[in-house]
Amino acid sequence: MRRQPTVTDVASAAGVSRQTVSNVLNTPQIVRAETRERVERAIASLHYRPHASARRLRTRQSETIAVRLDPVTDGISGSLLDRFLHALAERAGRAGFRVLLYTAADEPAEIAQFGRLLDGADVDAFVLTSTHHGDTRIDWLIEHDVPFVTFGRPWGVADMTDPEHLWVDVDGRHGLTLATGHVLDRGARRVAFLGWPAGSGTGDDRRAGWRSTMEARTDLSRAELDVLDLAVEEDPTDGSIAARLVATIDPAPDAIVCASDSLALGARLALGDRVPIVGYDDTPVARALGLSSVAQQLDEVAEGVLDLLIGAHRGRAGGAEGVDDPQHRLVKPRLVVR
Amino acid sequence: MRRQPTVTDVASAAGVSRQTVSNVLNTPQIVRAETRERVERAIASLHYRPHASARRLRTRQSETIAVRLDPVTDGISGSLLDRFLHALAERAGRAGFRVLLYTAADEPAEIAQFGRLLDGADVDAFVLTSTHHGDTRIDWLIEHDVPFVTFGRPWGVADMTDPEHLWVDVDGRHGLTLATGHVLDRGARRVAFLGWPAGSGTGDDRRAGWRSTMEARTDLSRAELDVLDLAVEEDPTDGSIAARLVATIDPAPDAIVCASDSLALGARLALGDRVPIVGYDDTPVARALGLSSVAQQLDEVAEGVLDLLIGAHRGRAGGAEGVDDPQHRLVKPRLVVR
Repeated sequence: MRRQPTVTDVASAAGVSRQTVSNVLNTPQIVRAETRERVERAIASLHYRPHASARRLRTRQSETIAVRLDPVTDGISGSLLDRFLHALAERAGRAGFRVLLYTAADEPAEIAQFGRLLDGADVDAFVLTSTHHGDTRIDWLIEHDVPFVTFGRPWGVADMTDPEHLWVDVDGRHGLTLATGHVLDRGARRVAFLGWPAGSGTGDDRRAGWRSTMEARTDLSRAELDVLDLAVEEDPTDGSIAARLVATIDPAPDAIVCASDSLALGARLALGDRVPIVGYDDTPVARALGLSSVAQQLDEVAEGVLDLLIGAHRGRAGGAEGVDDPQHRLVKPRLVVR
Repeated sequence: MRRQPTVTDVASAAGVSRQTVSNVLNTPQIVRAETRERVERAIASLHYRPHASARRLRTRQSETIAVRLDPVTDGISGSLLDRFLHALAERAGRAGFRVLLYTAADEPAEIAQFGRLLDGADVDAFVLTSTHHGDTRIDWLIEHDVPFVTFGRPWGVADMTDPEHLWVDVDGRHGLTLATGHVLDRGARRVAFLGWPAGSGTGDDRRAGWRSTMEARTDLSRAELDVLDLAVEEDPTDGSIAARLVATIDPAPDAIVCASDSLALGARLALGDRVPIVGYDDTPVARALGLSSVAQQLDEVAEGVLDLLIGAHRGRAGGAEGVDDPQHRLVKPRLVVR
């Protein structure tokens, strides 16, 4: 297969990492001059074109996009990916594309599926969800020059602007900034955060939204904020236990913002409506309980995924008007107030 | 296209309805002798073979099953079809089949999709959900001799054993029999039913489970049962309103069994845990609230759908051991007690 050179080819020709190539392309000022020149020579000799090589869909052989269907989770926010799938299938259908589902028990099995689906020429592109640090699927798709977009940032990577990795994500930090700002506006001051243990990109991002807002808008000390920062597993029962713990803090918190509706439900069941609680994901449960919640705007996410894959930018250098980085979209969530 | 004769061909040759042909095949004693003979002559002259003509998958051209993805519903039990989709995709994958999603705004649009998907030879069979009275999709698929299975019975049809229409469904009547029996076993006597307005096949079936159990196991009069039988729309808010109404009944009901977890959530929010409440669908919400709920056994449903479509019975006359009617499966739900 004669194919266009990729970042991987450039990295290998220059004897550097893909990350370094990406840095040369995006933030050349941080790369040592000697390394930069070596990479630039490799780019020139391979006729590498950064934007054209992005993982976009170039042909419409079968007009089919493959999406992995994860196993059902018991969590209340677990339906989020299903809601994304609905939005994606609807928009893909309107654009004349089909969505093929596949399942896989683990990452090696999923990579084996990639091969089978591509061998049969059944699939033109992949949409991946649940991306994580050290995701081998991404490397495989880049190596094999397969168009893909992920719903989720490449967490744990210093540079998220790798032009080979197209992604759309929701700005969870902004979501918690909205949630925290909302309860502060309504008179709360000691706002507790109910989230997940440190180490998950998504969870830490949401926590940062709460923390930075509290630092900017209240005079609580770092130590006081540490006390108001609770981490439990994603489960309403754990949420209830944590919420009971929150209630014992002295002086008592006067609002709780949560990293998910599951945790918000747990808090609500433990504390009733004594204290304002804000959830995240705007699930039917939040609606039923009358809780304010951060909505992920999955329609916009699906729109962005398709736009990157088959839309106006496909295979073209440069971005649309007003978009600095045409390979990545950070969708702003909104707060649904109840 | 040379194809095997179908029930439709027989009906048209004999000048009768498909229903009549089905009656001749399944319950000949209810058909007038003259009509029966006319149908039998048509069957013989067309070389119609009832079981072999069932809508099963005969070839494995693209090994792809198409499923319509319905628009997202806000209901708490709305995720049920998503959970079915997960179970189906997982099992189909293991059997070497792929699941293709499509969307359609309405029934005519969906039938147009059938045509497009079949013209492209992209799809071997369809799995339909949300079947209803007068479902024109079923007629189209039978007319065009396309293999399909529905998750859902052909409601509103006198004879559900049409050999052309393969279906799998969950025995909701049995589910409410279990739920009602459970609260009666625990000492309740005046058990209220919180369901949907009469006229939906699924809802009426569940109501019948409650009603027949109450008639068999309590001495409540027909009039008393009518008072305990409440119908509202599928929404937790409506569930709450109805539950508050239930609480005003004198003498007060001592348990409530519901047609869905949405209604159960509404009842729980309105009444707290003063009165035992049983839900239906065993959603994460029921788990979070600690409510007993009827589980639909979607894995078994998916298993049944695939078995009818590509399994042991494919294209063979007669059924598996112990199965009277090899074209239809009524899966027994179970009660998850909390």
